[in-house]
Amino acid sequence: MTPPLRTVAGVVAYDGTDYHGFQVQVGVPTVQGALEAALASFTALAGRLAGAGRTDTGVHAAGQVVVVTVAWGHTVAKLQDAWNAHLPRSIVVRRLVEAPPGFHPRFSALWRTYRYTVVETGGDSLGRSPLTDRYAWSVPRRLDVAAMNRAARTLVGEHDFAAFGLPTQGENTVRCIREAEWQIVTALPSVTPPEPGDPRLVFTISANGFLRVMVRSVVGSLLAVGDGHWMPDDIVLVREARDRRRAAPPAPPHGLTLAEVVYPDHLDPWRTGM
Amino acid sequence: MTPPLRTVAGVVAYDGTDYHGFQVQVGVPTVQGALEAALASFTALAGRLAGAGRTDTGVHAAGQVVVVTVAWGHTVAKLQDAWNAHLPRSIVVRRLVEAPPGFHPRFSALWRTYRYTVVETGGDSLGRSPLTDRYAWSVPRRLDVAAMNRAARTLVGEHDFAAFGLPTQGENTVRCIREAEWQIVTALPSVTPPEPGDPRLVFTISANGFLRVMVRSVVGSLLAVGDGHWMPDDIVLVREARDRRRAAPPAPPHGLTLAEVVYPDHLDPWRTGM
Repeated sequence: MTPPLRTVAGVVAYDGTDYHGFQVQVGVPTVQGALEAALASFTALAGRLAGAGRTDTGVHAAGQVVVVTVAWGHTVAKLQDAWNAHLPRSIVVRRLVEAPPGFHPRFSALWRTYRYTVVETGGDSLGRSPLTDRYAWSVPRRLDVAAMNRAARTLVGEHDFAAFGLPTQGENTVRCIREAEWQIVTALPSVTPPEPGDPRLVFTISANGFLRVMVRSVVGSLLAVGDGHWMPDDIVLVREARDRRRAAPPAPPHGLTLAEVVYPDHLDPWRTGM
Repeated sequence: MTPPLRTVAGVVAYDGTDYHGFQVQVGVPTVQGALEAALASFTALAGRLAGAGRTDTGVHAAGQVVVVTVAWGHTVAKLQDAWNAHLPRSIVVRRLVEAPPGFHPRFSALWRTYRYTVVETGGDSLGRSPLTDRYAWSVPRRLDVAAMNRAARTLVGEHDFAAFGLPTQGENTVRCIREAEWQIVTALPSVTPPEPGDPRLVFTISANGFLRVMVRSVVGSLLAVGDGHWMPDDIVLVREARDRRRAAPPAPPHGLTLAEVVYPDHLDPWRTGM
């Protein structure tokens, strides 16, 4: 007897360092590829696994959301355990439930939140540390965070973000940002990694969707403000120019993490799911 | 003309994940081996590089201290740059100065400080995360931190620690601990790695020296208290038994970081150094 087909939704976290991004590509390791291969090693997939965000090469996730249909005759909890047992340690399925009817991790999403972490290693700092390198961009100078936040506030609301990213498949370039803010986190001696020292700047940006490279391009341009190359209001001019050559180079991918994806209540797998 | 020999002292940070510990061993990658090989690729070493602490396989360092004598005719700052340029990204020489006469990173040290990080993934947690895995031990339950701190306080002072570790080369097993304390760090959404959630428990232990495996063995035994298997005062009985079979199994190495080594003023390279 063939096991019944089940469509499940999962929250997936990964260290993106060793992957060529989320989406499957031939001949290189990808997160989607690793997730599908782990499932296929003990059950049958009906179609492909889909994700909420196509994170780039080297980008991490704490709260990527995926959906997949598999042949499975046991509980969803057992499916989660088996899946995790077959995955490399760099990928973890942190939650798994039955997906509500009609749920799609990308098209059902209301909001997505990304975080970007910068470590300031200017001044008296000991410089770049291998213990923060993997999840943060080390910037060997001090930044004007107040100016960066004035610039960030000009991005909030519905705008055309063509200056900061590329649409996929002929979509338009208008997105609605509901939050864009830098916070200063003084690295206690007691945070992980356990090191005294350098301030961390964490940028949280939340929107109904993002263009390709958009978060990293926004971070690069906000750092140009933090460095004093641009005034905060210059970000408005860059945005209104709708020309990617006007934006600063994108920040590197390893500081970026897909933090959370939010769904409307009736499609939220963690509310409806069993 | 041969460049003059210079003896330099450095602060070295490393991600120990991919190394078989600090000390050179034939046929496997070690931190000492990588530091020496990087130097040897552009200058000549007189003798071997020495370190303050022989960290085990998988243990990290933010403040390892090393000394080495090299043939070098330029400034120490240029030596540091050249050394870092030849090192893998997982190792960074964060400071480099001329060593004071008679300085030895191990024998001159007054105090060494290690930190051990635990992430509690019990209760409502989403479980193990690949974004904290590299530098912290994920423990899938809630621990009694107050009891762990009562037990930790019984370790402070001069005691025989034979129950918790092995001496090197016929040394005795008496050490003086000046600090041993757990702190709870609620992981802000904004720390690195940028994830909501689970509390981190950071154990700081500072002593005039440590036996082999001692910090991890102490952490393992304190977690037996945090789990309720032992009462805080049982740690005194374990210590006084001077028998390693009485201690709990050592905690895994990846949560451990050599944080700092302190020297007396007249031998402190960062005070005397040029």
